Amino acid sequence: MGIVMKGADVAAAMKERLVKKTERLKEQGILPCLGIVRVGARPDDLAYERGARKRMEGIGIGCQVTELPEDITQEEFEKEFCRVNDNPDIHGILLFRPLPAHLDEEPVTEMIHPMKDVDGMSPVNIAKVFTGDETGYAPCTPEAVMEMMDYYKIDLRGKRVTVIGRSMVVGKPLSMLLLKRHATITVCHTRTEELERTCREAEVLVAAAGKAKMVSGGMVGDGAVVVDVGINVDAQGSLCGDVDYDAVQDKASYISPVPRGVGSVTSSVLAKHVVRGAAYLSGSR
Amino acid sequence: MGIVMKGADVAAAMKERLVKKTERLKEQGILPCLGIVRVGARPDDLAYERGARKRMEGIGIGCQVTELPEDITQEEFEKEFCRVNDNPDIHGILLFRPLPAHLDEEPVTEMIHPMKDVDGMSPVNIAKVFTGDETGYAPCTPEAVMEMMDYYKIDLRGKRVTVIGRSMVVGKPLSMLLLKRHATITVCHTRTEELERTCREAEVLVAAAGKAKMVSGGMVGDGAVVVDVGINVDAQGSLCGDVDYDAVQDKASYISPVPRGVGSVTSSVLAKHVVRGAAYLSGSR
Repeated sequence: MGIVMKGADVAAAMKERLVKKTERLKEQGILPCLGIVRVGARPDDLAYERGARKRMEGIGIGCQVTELPEDITQEEFEKEFCRVNDNPDIHGILLFRPLPAHLDEEPVTEMIHPMKDVDGMSPVNIAKVFTGDETGYAPCTPEAVMEMMDYYKIDLRGKRVTVIGRSMVVGKPLSMLLLKRHATITVCHTRTEELERTCREAEVLVAAAGKAKMVSGGMVGDGAVVVDVGINVDAQGSLCGDVDYDAVQDKASYISPVPRGVGSVTSSVLAKHVVRGAAYLSGSR
Repeated sequence: MGIVMKGADVAAAMKERLVKKTERLKEQGILPCLGIVRVGARPDDLAYERGARKRMEGIGIGCQVTELPEDITQEEFEKEFCRVNDNPDIHGILLFRPLPAHLDEEPVTEMIHPMKDVDGMSPVNIAKVFTGDETGYAPCTPEAVMEMMDYYKIDLRGKRVTVIGRSMVVGKPLSMLLLKRHATITVCHTRTEELERTCREAEVLVAAAGKAKMVSGGMVGDGAVVVDVGINVDAQGSLCGDVDYDAVQDKASYISPVPRGVGSVTSSVLAKHVVRGAAYLSGSR
């Protein structure tokens, strides 16, 4: 039975550090504050928003939500986004995406202040993640995976680490974060031939494919570390990951569950970025 | 004996296409023109410059060299760079790097017009290569590797493709270009454990480590495609690649030599980008 990588434990350790940093900023008169920009009211967005607000509150970080009507024009949307971006009391911005189909997100990803871009959507931060420049913000999910690796002291240096998935939200930026830690990275995806063999050879396997329980027991080598980034609903209507947990848990040395795994850490990363943004923007590094 | 991947053949095929495109642009009164910015007169830079000028001439592309004194101030350098950048008759800029130690390249990488950034040094183009947006320019060397793959019709889709090296000049952008073509990519580097085994399993192996003859016969699987991006000098003072050619040629199905391999294609990619920049900037796409 592999050791279960519990998101809550990782988040608790992060919280402890972030509370201290936030207190120090407050002593200097700075209240770190997250600005959430939401267009419409999708249930998914609302659920994540509730979790994020709660996380910020727990740490002592402020939170301002700008809710915009679903039928807002591009011009109005950009104007509203600009107001949040220019607000000196807001140190980080989370924009829920995808936007409604009639809106174009590109102008705001280019306009956002790179130090407020706490979810890493601007070209500046994307380029920094690619080059390995740690002054940039990576998207929250891949960084949550790294927090998990660190908390459980997973040795990455020189190891065969395989990522299933090549999205800009997880797979690609995660590969770059892993490479920065000197892992030998392999990126698999839907077109990969011999997926099973390639995954089985990995010492660390990260599943970010978005396909329920696609990682079977045969895809995991003995003693591998298995991190599951997937959030899916199975045939029974229950939340599940990309990993067939029951089939894999005996082979893995470490395994992250879904729910209560990586997903429980992402809003802590968001908080970490907001605190970093606040320190930077107020010149208190 | 593997089939030798000849840079000159790839360049000749590219030239044919580029001459036609250049002629069409000239019919519309547009003369594609490369602006070279060189600080000082390093022999390496001068050698590459000669090759680039010759390549541009052969295609019918103009070339303007701005030579700046080695002891130029940052301010003067930026001013001169700006003049080239703002010159409407120049459609692509090649800046020789590294710059002298007292100069900072970052301001010009941020200022360069993304469509004139034919060597892919600006954050905009770096981000585009990472996201897989083909409107961006990749650096010339990794794109030269892709031209080589295409010319020799190497099947990349779903294949195990391993890149040795993780630089921003070759390894990382090349991995993204390969991923875009649906290869399963593995990136190895100096910290990789079991380098030999990992390389031997590759169906396509690209060496961009910058270490003379480091790819031995034992690192190449039977029938693998081996592309050598290295340019080194061996103990005898001769130019050589990262691959021990003599030891590998019998195992490889295709193999690119050094010299006369990938290095002979990079200036053709530069020309391709200048022609693309000219078409774009003049609105004649």
